Amino acid sequence: MTPSGTTSGGAPGPAGQPAWELLLPAAGAPARRRGRALQEALREAVRSGRLAAGTRLPSTRELAADLGVSRGLVTEAYEQLTAEGYLRGERGAGTWVGGAVRAGRVGAATGTGGGGRDPVAGVPDVRVDFRVDFRPGTPDLSLFPRSAWAAAQRSVLARLPHRALGYPDPRGLPELRGALAGMLARRRGVVADPERLVVCSGVAQASTLLGFVLRARGLRTVGVEDPGSPEHGRLFASTGMETVWLPLDGEGLRPEPLAASGVRAVVVTPSHQFPSGIGWSAERRAALLDWARTVGGYVLEDDYDGDFRYDRAPVGALQGLDPERVVYAGSVSKSLAPGLRLGWMLVPEELLGEVVERKRTMDLGNPVLDQAVLAEFVTRGGYDRQLRRCQRAYRERRDALLAALAARLPGIEVSGIAAGLHVIARVPALFGPPERFLARAAEAGVALRSLEEYGTARPSDGDVRLVIGYAHLSPSAIAEGIGLLAGAVGA
Amino acid sequence: MTPSGTTSGGAPGPAGQPAWELLLPAAGAPARRRGRALQEALREAVRSGRLAAGTRLPSTRELAADLGVSRGLVTEAYEQLTAEGYLRGERGAGTWVGGAVRAGRVGAATGTGGGGRDPVAGVPDVRVDFRVDFRPGTPDLSLFPRSAWAAAQRSVLARLPHRALGYPDPRGLPELRGALAGMLARRRGVVADPERLVVCSGVAQASTLLGFVLRARGLRTVGVEDPGSPEHGRLFASTGMETVWLPLDGEGLRPEPLAASGVRAVVVTPSHQFPSGIGWSAERRAALLDWARTVGGYVLEDDYDGDFRYDRAPVGALQGLDPERVVYAGSVSKSLAPGLRLGWMLVPEELLGEVVERKRTMDLGNPVLDQAVLAEFVTRGGYDRQLRRCQRAYRERRDALLAALAARLPGIEVSGIAAGLHVIARVPALFGPPERFLARAAEAGVALRSLEEYGTARPSDGDVRLVIGYAHLSPSAIAEGIGLLAGAVGA
Repeated sequence: MTPSGTTSGGAPGPAGQPAWELLLPAAGAPARRRGRALQEALREAVRSGRLAAGTRLPSTRELAADLGVSRGLVTEAYEQLTAEGYLRGERGAGTWVGGAVRAGRVGAATGTGGGGRDPVAGVPDVRVDFRVDFRPGTPDLSLFPRSAWAAAQRSVLARLPHRALGYPDPRGLPELRGALAGMLARRRGVVADPERLVVCSGVAQASTLLGFVLRARGLRTVGVEDPGSPEHGRLFASTGMETVWLPLDGEGLRPEPLAASGVRAVVVTPSHQFPSGIGWSAERRAALLDWARTVGGYVLEDDYDGDFRYDRAPVGALQGLDPERVVYAGSVSKSLAPGLRLGWMLVPEELLGEVVERKRTMDLGNPVLDQAVLAEFVTRGGYDRQLRRCQRAYRERRDALLAALAARLPGIEVSGIAAGLHVIARVPALFGPPERFLARAAEAGVALRSLEEYGTARPSDGDVRLVIGYAHLSPSAIAEGIGLLAGAVGA
Repeated sequence: MTPSGTTSGGAPGPAGQPAWELLLPAAGAPARRRGRALQEALREAVRSGRLAAGTRLPSTRELAADLGVSRGLVTEAYEQLTAEGYLRGERGAGTWVGGAVRAGRVGAATGTGGGGRDPVAGVPDVRVDFRVDFRPGTPDLSLFPRSAWAAAQRSVLARLPHRALGYPDPRGLPELRGALAGMLARRRGVVADPERLVVCSGVAQASTLLGFVLRARGLRTVGVEDPGSPEHGRLFASTGMETVWLPLDGEGLRPEPLAASGVRAVVVTPSHQFPSGIGWSAERRAALLDWARTVGGYVLEDDYDGDFRYDRAPVGALQGLDPERVVYAGSVSKSLAPGLRLGWMLVPEELLGEVVERKRTMDLGNPVLDQAVLAEFVTRGGYDRQLRRCQRAYRERRDALLAALAARLPGIEVSGIAAGLHVIARVPALFGPPERFLARAAEAGVALRSLEEYGTARPSDGDVRLVIGYAHLSPSAIAEGIGLLAGAVGA
């Protein structure tokens, strides 16, 4: 992790000094174009390996002086490339070439790494090729509360008894289970008995745990929402369960196809359906639970963004209505950081022993120190503060997105805006056929997903339905992205 | 995790003051007996719930004054009960009633928690009922380098780029894979290509990952050492693989039964066999690899205590001899703490993609911050320092054990002493039949395991073969335990 000792790089100039000016071929161009040229040159130098991972860049002041450009232009270039993952900055300590670009060289079969794989949408991260990336699934990682987290880590290491460093309880640290149960009951309206709460590494692991348990009970199929997250199906497939697509309408899962499917387990996102953005109606919630009771089935509720509600009071989780039929799963991936790999599930009594034993054989339980830190964070109010902070930031970004769409792409219809980290924008066919629309956006440097990528439906109206993630983008990046998009499609 | 606000507890005395003196019924007895009586009274008060979890105890000075005993006696009682898990101490901040005793109330089916579950031996933790617990599997948790770890945590949080907090690479952080590969090549003689190294949560997860991969390739059985760790079989069973016991002799796995078994995968502990303590001979290592090449099979090498060698140079890992047939697995559980849940595996090229995809569906990868901290710790030399420190401590304890055994139980034969965290002691039949020997030891407060508990062999010579773990015990506790044992069996 330590950057190499190199303090500068690039093509070597006379007397071994790096020739940073070689990075800027268009030295005579106007400032705006020079800024872009600098960014492209830096990007290319990293991509090609001329600037190796770990190379420390000159300070913005030095490089600006070397190149004879304004310092602001260099700062902007560093910031842009840091956001794109080419560079990494350390507060007050400089800027380095990041390792992410090189790290991506392993093939798709073994999964690429990096910061942006979305476990819900299963979107591989190729963000570095786009100027503005609206693909959903990643929160704003810069909102992670580093100093509060560091303080909690310090406190935990100072007070945790030695014994707690031993093999953990596979269900999770009792203190964390108690803290989470209280928090979830209060915020999400779940029935949260700490004895039924199992700490896990996130919704993905919750899916795998449940899949193995249900498979061992003889179930062979699981129903998933259509449209929905392809990742749900992949996770259950890894446990030997086959996926059955179940159609949604504007209210939730349609009851008849569900009943006819023969499945006895489903995965749903009722609070803010992924990706359509709808909230399930009360009738459909009730109908799903009726179905579950009738067939003796189970519902996995993926509450992936249930923490974020902007215009009305949060809808309580489905689990609160029937904790014996619903497995509730959530995580800190959207509220703190996916890299923490910490989540939870609330498990019906009947499945509890099997889920815990499966958790035990998978990994013996989650790391103790992380659990203790989160327990402290929740107990002392840090988690609520963090949620309020994210909520404010994300509401502002959503509003920026809605404003930019209204201003630059008139005639589009936006839905799913009341909650979560993404919206659905329906763009009329008059902007061209869907494929061409997306291709043009990509050419303009704007990454987007269409709703069709998440399900089997292929509407014939020619409209483009975009899934636009905004939480990880600043209001100005959002405005820029929508501007680029509008320009590209001739709006 | 925060202790309750209560600053004292116990039976309430006049005017609401706690009547701590009620804890000490034998007030007139000699000091030594009073010390023991105080410990027993405290233990009983916690067990019964009279002193609730989170209750803060008076300072040693206060309690000593209240009870009219020496402060040393109170200090000793607190230390003993802290070691046993009844109490927990926070440096300079006091002593509380711990939560561990209460936390154990869930039944065996869902796994009890606490600090002492041994994933190798599968020994549930009931340590609180014994005065000296020689059961193997836990390192000395007080050796965990808290301040160095805290410093690495601070440094990581200060410098990690935001992007690194996103979804991780399921194979592990590139920096950690590089650091571990270097460390393992140097210390264990493995062939350690960072591209073949997968970070996982420990040997248990490595076993499950491999089990699922091999099961998906059509294998249905896995061979395990007899005697060996029952946990290996349980972990593979969770992936749908059946266990076949394969007999050991003094040199390693016997080749003929292995060949005749029909298995195409085995789990072995060649560096310091668990539990027999033998190191496999060079011939048997070669024979195992020949077998693997012949049948196209795989070997899982569980290097559970390969870091600790006392009297000679370490034996290199088996994997170094054939990295395409051997999956090497290790962890920080014995060198740092099991609660960190961090380990690694080196995977043959042919299995790599499948193992990584399985890791991805299990948990999407290990927590990022923990990985970055370990990478920093390894890179900056902290890990080597920690191993040296443990090695010194454990050698001293082993020597204390050997000395105590020689002095108090003459005629016994000790083996497996060159490495690891436990030895085998063969006690002649003249001390009574095995069952009676173990029962007497337990009555005297000494927990022990016999070798027979780990395999199918039942020797007819009447000798007792003890598996004695010493790493988690101080030299004085070791001497006390062996003294109690000698007294109990009439030696």
